[in-house]
Amino acid sequence: MHMIKENKRLDSQLQFILEIDKLKEVYRRSYLVNSQRRENSSEHSWHVAVIAMLMAEYGNEETDICRVLCMLLIHDLVEIDAGDTYCYDDQGALDKAAREKEAAHRLFGFLPSDQSLWIRNLWEEFEANTTPEARFANAVDRFMPLLHNFFTQGKSWLENGITQDQVKARMAKVHEGSTILWEYSQKIIEDAVDRGYLRPNNDSA
Amino acid sequence: MHMIKENKRLDSQLQFILEIDKLKEVYRRSYLVNSQRRENSSEHSWHVAVIAMLMAEYGNEETDICRVLCMLLIHDLVEIDAGDTYCYDDQGALDKAAREKEAAHRLFGFLPSDQSLWIRNLWEEFEANTTPEARFANAVDRFMPLLHNFFTQGKSWLENGITQDQVKARMAKVHEGSTILWEYSQKIIEDAVDRGYLRPNNDSA
Repeated sequence: MHMIKENKRLDSQLQFILEIDKLKEVYRRSYLVNSQRRENSSEHSWHVAVIAMLMAEYGNEETDICRVLCMLLIHDLVEIDAGDTYCYDDQGALDKAAREKEAAHRLFGFLPSDQSLWIRNLWEEFEANTTPEARFANAVDRFMPLLHNFFTQGKSWLENGITQDQVKARMAKVHEGSTILWEYSQKIIEDAVDRGYLRPNNDSA
Repeated sequence: MHMIKENKRLDSQLQFILEIDKLKEVYRRSYLVNSQRRENSSEHSWHVAVIAMLMAEYGNEETDICRVLCMLLIHDLVEIDAGDTYCYDDQGALDKAAREKEAAHRLFGFLPSDQSLWIRNLWEEFEANTTPEARFANAVDRFMPLLHNFFTQGKSWLENGITQDQVKARMAKVHEGSTILWEYSQKIIEDAVDRGYLRPNNDSA
């Protein structure tokens, strides 16, 4: 891809900026609330960042919200190469980490070395989920698809035969970042089962 | 829309979160770099926020980057009601401010009053362009479509008969926020005219 070669640092930043345009074509399993089409990962990244802005007050711990926002803005970039691995896809989960690590290496490699390291560390921090910022970012990232599913009458859950236990297991990380959002998620799950948006557990069916 | 009525504050925040899902269906004039489809305003909001993260070093003034990110994440929300007014649409520009003010009133009204005021002030600050954060946010917001146009061979410029002078006028605000990005934009514009991606000025044609 052609760039105007004069400022090497700026050029490499712009190469990265152009490369990540591809996140707009990585489609997730969840559907838009008012549409029949699936959401893509750039739209999701925007949405969760706005939620983090507005819901910072519900974090279990004090967080540097700026770091949370940066983390959420870049947390799905690896999907450009690795694809969106559906969170209930046990097969895909087997090599997810390896695929995403390779993607991180290629994608963040476009950036000048200081920024490459910064973004890589932010992404690894999100994945490791061991800091207050990562715990809150992960909570928001898992809470949002629950809303999308509930307000599309469980469209994606039903299509993929997902059960209540699977969603509850997925929500465990919400509890680590935000007890308030987790409590809310439990009510949504119960309501979703009552309405037939989500299959009850196999053993209780 | 049904919500679980227990925590009024959280309920109203979630109403807002669901309402702004609609930004994912507000389409802009610019095209994705690697696709034939147009970009929507939520994708654009994500992309400019990432650019601001990475290009903060090019701002003319010191900025609180967290405020810049928050501003960029919400700067286009009014388009949910007001639509995306093409930046070279002189007719649309006539009532743009009135349409967007009305949209801000309805949309930000979903939020609890403290957050409603916060988001409204952030949006008005972006529009007024009189603080360092707003100047940098506006610079990034205008710089990005230039890249999209250049790397789609001027697709949107050519479709809309846009001339070099119009793009140069549009880039004046980039200069206020970032001289470095502005200088880069001037080279891109010249290169775009040379390549036939952008019409030269009418008087020089």
